[in-house]
Amino acid sequence: MPGSAGSTAEPPGGSAADELVERRRGKLHPAVARTREAVRAMLAELPKGTTVLVACSGGTDSLALAAATAFEAPKLELRAGAVIVDHGLQADSAHVAETAATQCRGLGLDPVHVRPVEVGSDGGPEAAARAARYDALRDAADESGADVVLLAHTRDDQAETVLLGLGRGSGARSLAGMAPIAGLLRRPFLEVPRATTAAACIASGLRPWHDPHNDDPQYTRVRVRHEVLPVLEEALGPGVVEALARTAGLLRADADALDILAADLAETALRRAEDEVVCDIGMLEDEPAAIRTRALRQAALEAGCRATDLTAAHIAAVDALVTAWRGQRWIDLPQGVRAVRRGGFIVLGEGVTG
Amino acid sequence: MPGSAGSTAEPPGGSAADELVERRRGKLHPAVARTREAVRAMLAELPKGTTVLVACSGGTDSLALAAATAFEAPKLELRAGAVIVDHGLQADSAHVAETAATQCRGLGLDPVHVRPVEVGSDGGPEAAARAARYDALRDAADESGADVVLLAHTRDDQAETVLLGLGRGSGARSLAGMAPIAGLLRRPFLEVPRATTAAACIASGLRPWHDPHNDDPQYTRVRVRHEVLPVLEEALGPGVVEALARTAGLLRADADALDILAADLAETALRRAEDEVVCDIGMLEDEPAAIRTRALRQAALEAGCRATDLTAAHIAAVDALVTAWRGQRWIDLPQGVRAVRRGGFIVLGEGVTG
Repeated sequence: MPGSAGSTAEPPGGSAADELVERRRGKLHPAVARTREAVRAMLAELPKGTTVLVACSGGTDSLALAAATAFEAPKLELRAGAVIVDHGLQADSAHVAETAATQCRGLGLDPVHVRPVEVGSDGGPEAAARAARYDALRDAADESGADVVLLAHTRDDQAETVLLGLGRGSGARSLAGMAPIAGLLRRPFLEVPRATTAAACIASGLRPWHDPHNDDPQYTRVRVRHEVLPVLEEALGPGVVEALARTAGLLRADADALDILAADLAETALRRAEDEVVCDIGMLEDEPAAIRTRALRQAALEAGCRATDLTAAHIAAVDALVTAWRGQRWIDLPQGVRAVRRGGFIVLGEGVTG
Repeated sequence: MPGSAGSTAEPPGGSAADELVERRRGKLHPAVARTREAVRAMLAELPKGTTVLVACSGGTDSLALAAATAFEAPKLELRAGAVIVDHGLQADSAHVAETAATQCRGLGLDPVHVRPVEVGSDGGPEAAARAARYDALRDAADESGADVVLLAHTRDDQAETVLLGLGRGSGARSLAGMAPIAGLLRRPFLEVPRATTAAACIASGLRPWHDPHNDDPQYTRVRVRHEVLPVLEEALGPGVVEALARTAGLLRADADALDILAADLAETALRRAEDEVVCDIGMLEDEPAAIRTRALRQAALEAGCRATDLTAAHIAAVDALVTAWRGQRWIDLPQGVRAVRRGGFIVLGEGVTG
């Protein structure tokens, strides 16, 4: 382990000290300790008195999160509640939600909300359920004055998300997985294995609900979990899940840095003139491709292309107007936007001509 | 297709015009056309009279490459030869190499070298064979005054390389696949599917050698090809190979840009003092993490760490001295190097103390 020799100079204090005592007494299971550490690290910087809500389905990961949060929040002088989203997708979903709520209350969380939602069909069943869930979480946070909603995604979920992103092939951002912190959402377990949350539930005598959706191969994520990951581990050796999760973190940092630099470049090299976006080739051409193409993507978005329709191939074609100019007439982009080279500029807009 | 409407303003000329004639006569198979286009695009900028060597095993991909190069090089006024590396790993390898050489000569390539090599064992059988092969290619290029060696890696090989990199989990560079151009090596087929090279061989009446190593599951790459990729395609849908290859190109551009920016940062923020490398925290701390951690990695390398031993976890621990300072004593790095925080600086070296 890097830094194992001398990386903690200060004596442990607060709840870390309590745990040391518990551990010496042989009472604290290492899996429970690991979930609590992860929650403590994520909440440590919050102002006292902040309300945090645990998003809990009653499943293994979120029940372990509820338990760890119920233990840590009072020590940090935070108020901790829970929100249970009832997607109404299964016959007994109301009962499952009530059971989870009862478990959360039993752990000492307060307030505990149950929020029924209606799942639409936009973008497929997984995306629709996710959208409904996040809306409900935001509403519950508003209602209870919470500044933070904790989600129980584990390192295994993160690895699966990276593999799901591989199929898109749209670069670092699509492999960057889930963010540890995104607005009011926080994910303390992104480096915690699923096996640890399961062990923590057993050690704490918690009985998680098993969601049958987690085994339904109609969901791409389930196929990635049960079919792709085992084969990948067999071919590449153990540690693949950890490597994928680490990849997510590193590529997220890369994408963040390049987005900032591209926004700076766009600030100086792009300007909006009537219905057109005009890019100064002289300011773009000597920039590294990774930054230049991101600035061009921003130009295409500002000219009216929808992000979901704009592919890497589109941007490569616009980039060729900058770096491989040989008299191309125009590039057709989504939503009727065109890109042309006009003198020392790339011009993007509807129906533009050279 | 982006740019399909007006992306070629000039009439086709040179060998493109020949092909148009051939195609109209119904003689040119689209797979042959595709391999030739790819070779032409890669060789178009070379000065007339340049010698290029095709690295040919006699297998499908490299035989298609040899044929396409033999066709295109004379039109571009280039001299095209071939080099066949005999790894001596199979009983009939000398015979296989001679057959490939005969095929290359039959295609009109000249000179054609056969180079027997001895494969060591450093880093495993695949790495050792690769090292011996690249040495032999460089020697053959030297001997025949070639400035370019063409390798036949396809889009499928590139996708496999990305998946192999996933197991390392060391960020963009490990997922960036193979470079289209690296020193004297060039890979014109990185966007050409393996199915196309196979179809081109059939259409041209070429009889490729089938390397039994390509089916031997002792090789990680073979397991990725025959076990991981089919499962991944089944879970994520078709287009995974293309998405992986595109990912490689995008992440290569990202890594190139960030390496340049990190080198610039290291230039100003790092200095070498006696046996120590000293990093100015004030210059590092406000930089994006992706650039800061790359500069710290460079500091660790300059302080004596070996690249192969230095992990993302090591660098994260050193980075915490910059961004999450809470009195850590020192960080142990490979090769006995330590990192400490000393006032406004991070100091790296053997046996340094705070």
